[in-house]
Amino acid sequence: MISKLIEKIQKTAPIVVGLDPQLKFIPKHLLDAAYKEKGENPEGVAEAIFEFNKGIVDATADLIPAVKPQIAMYETFGIPGLIAFDRTVKYCKEKGLVVIGDIKRGDIGSTSAAYAQGHLGHVTIGGKEFRGFEEDFATVNPYLGSDGVKPFIDVCKEEDKGIFVLVKTSNPSSGEFQDRVTDGRRIYEWVAQKVDEWGSDCMDGDYSNVGAVVGATYPEEGRILRDIMPRAFILVPGYGAQGGKGADLVHFFNHDGLGAIVNSSRGIIAAYTQEKYSKFGEAGYADAARAAVLDMKVDILGALSAK
Amino acid sequence: MISKLIEKIQKTAPIVVGLDPQLKFIPKHLLDAAYKEKGENPEGVAEAIFEFNKGIVDATADLIPAVKPQIAMYETFGIPGLIAFDRTVKYCKEKGLVVIGDIKRGDIGSTSAAYAQGHLGHVTIGGKEFRGFEEDFATVNPYLGSDGVKPFIDVCKEEDKGIFVLVKTSNPSSGEFQDRVTDGRRIYEWVAQKVDEWGSDCMDGDYSNVGAVVGATYPEEGRILRDIMPRAFILVPGYGAQGGKGADLVHFFNHDGLGAIVNSSRGIIAAYTQEKYSKFGEAGYADAARAAVLDMKVDILGALSAK
Repeated sequence: MISKLIEKIQKTAPIVVGLDPQLKFIPKHLLDAAYKEKGENPEGVAEAIFEFNKGIVDATADLIPAVKPQIAMYETFGIPGLIAFDRTVKYCKEKGLVVIGDIKRGDIGSTSAAYAQGHLGHVTIGGKEFRGFEEDFATVNPYLGSDGVKPFIDVCKEEDKGIFVLVKTSNPSSGEFQDRVTDGRRIYEWVAQKVDEWGSDCMDGDYSNVGAVVGATYPEEGRILRDIMPRAFILVPGYGAQGGKGADLVHFFNHDGLGAIVNSSRGIIAAYTQEKYSKFGEAGYADAARAAVLDMKVDILGALSAK
Repeated sequence: MISKLIEKIQKTAPIVVGLDPQLKFIPKHLLDAAYKEKGENPEGVAEAIFEFNKGIVDATADLIPAVKPQIAMYETFGIPGLIAFDRTVKYCKEKGLVVIGDIKRGDIGSTSAAYAQGHLGHVTIGGKEFRGFEEDFATVNPYLGSDGVKPFIDVCKEEDKGIFVLVKTSNPSSGEFQDRVTDGRRIYEWVAQKVDEWGSDCMDGDYSNVGAVVGATYPEEGRILRDIMPRAFILVPGYGAQGGKGADLVHFFNHDGLGAIVNSSRGIIAAYTQEKYSKFGEAGYADAARAAVLDMKVDILGALSAK
């Protein structure tokens, strides 16, 4: 699956749009239409979320290789929200996009296997295969160790799918446990070394289907981690709204110009709320998103060509 | 919420039944009936899962304070599976049980808040409150630090709910990162210290609504962690099928006889597959579960009274 993502990146740019719809970002005309159809309730919001995502995807699909829906933003609305997540994943795949499910799951043994089957694989009922959420990649939490991650890798191998393991997250308090030094290295470096080990068993061309998450807000750590995991693709959240800039991110990439993909969520999907894109207005949220993707592309590709 | 759990424990026993239905454990008569009604597909399995859980709950509700459905086992069947999870949570609450959602979620900021609202709190749409999954407690992964956990605590305070933070998990590879020594203590001890800090802000009687998960398979670690987090209730998985025994677990409890609750999943819900309970047969799976709960109660309470 990573080779498919790379092929799409080479035709577009190493950027991913985070489909993290918060109620406050959804334009009034979409909410009104959805509430009229489904009621002012979670079903109505779920309908509006799907239409909102559809607008963003239709306006940006030719510019980007992938999207990253954040499942929490759907799960918060219960079953109707998760139906909107499911519809979003399927719609993005119809449009030819690679879908990274930002689910941060992680458990042990048969429980991790159940998550992996539900999001990346299939279950077998009466001899027939059924698929749950059908993402191409999922994010995975490493706190439980290899027992938690390997069931995901087994499914990745069977289904040609991929994972991104949390290594160094973008948030201010990520250092509380991740930065602790043990045997001469920080915890996130030990996790990175495991990512490299796990990934060696799951190669797909020059890169592995086992990637890593490293926040844009920690560029120096990105440089170190790039060396520890040379074959891992790095998913980089924290660009834009969280403070990361293109110039900070060059060390997340390898010399081949590959090896990382940078996510922006609010900076794209709520671009219309920024002064810079205010001319588009609320009704033009999708065009504002397209303009923001084009600007992000210039920023990232400019920084890479100046490397 | 922890005071409600304690009150129920004092009337029953410090045990929780893990509702982790795997397809292979569901008796044929339930599958046949569900497939006939809904088809041999995820909807059919989801119906069978709910009926299976209902049987277990009806047979054991008078003996136990709480249940712990493992959401992965439902999520693996996609939306129909999650509907069965939702129905299970609601049914257990109707029966007066405390529900611990074993969801192991964890993200940052508004994303963790979204999970917390979806599982323990509510969303507001058009001035009205709507609730997603309505568990009483949720398990939370600490890898992202305070930014990931505090949004859950905020919801716990508003709604009188609780969380159990993963500290030392029951699986064989839990030591890969959790056991690493840094500044004289293991990572799980640092997490435990944070649990104590976080919990001090969220007290409900003698105990905190911020608890911890410590595996039954690590009794020595349980003794150490009990001291670091005196006010945290410890949720102890790994009893039975994973190898933990009552006598190993006494140090997870405080001198008041409280402070821990021991989970068994397969050992109860699939008791009928064990030689010991084979007389009940597949059709008697619920009675077998009741017998296994009674035996577990004798084992745990016996060990506690001998302490």
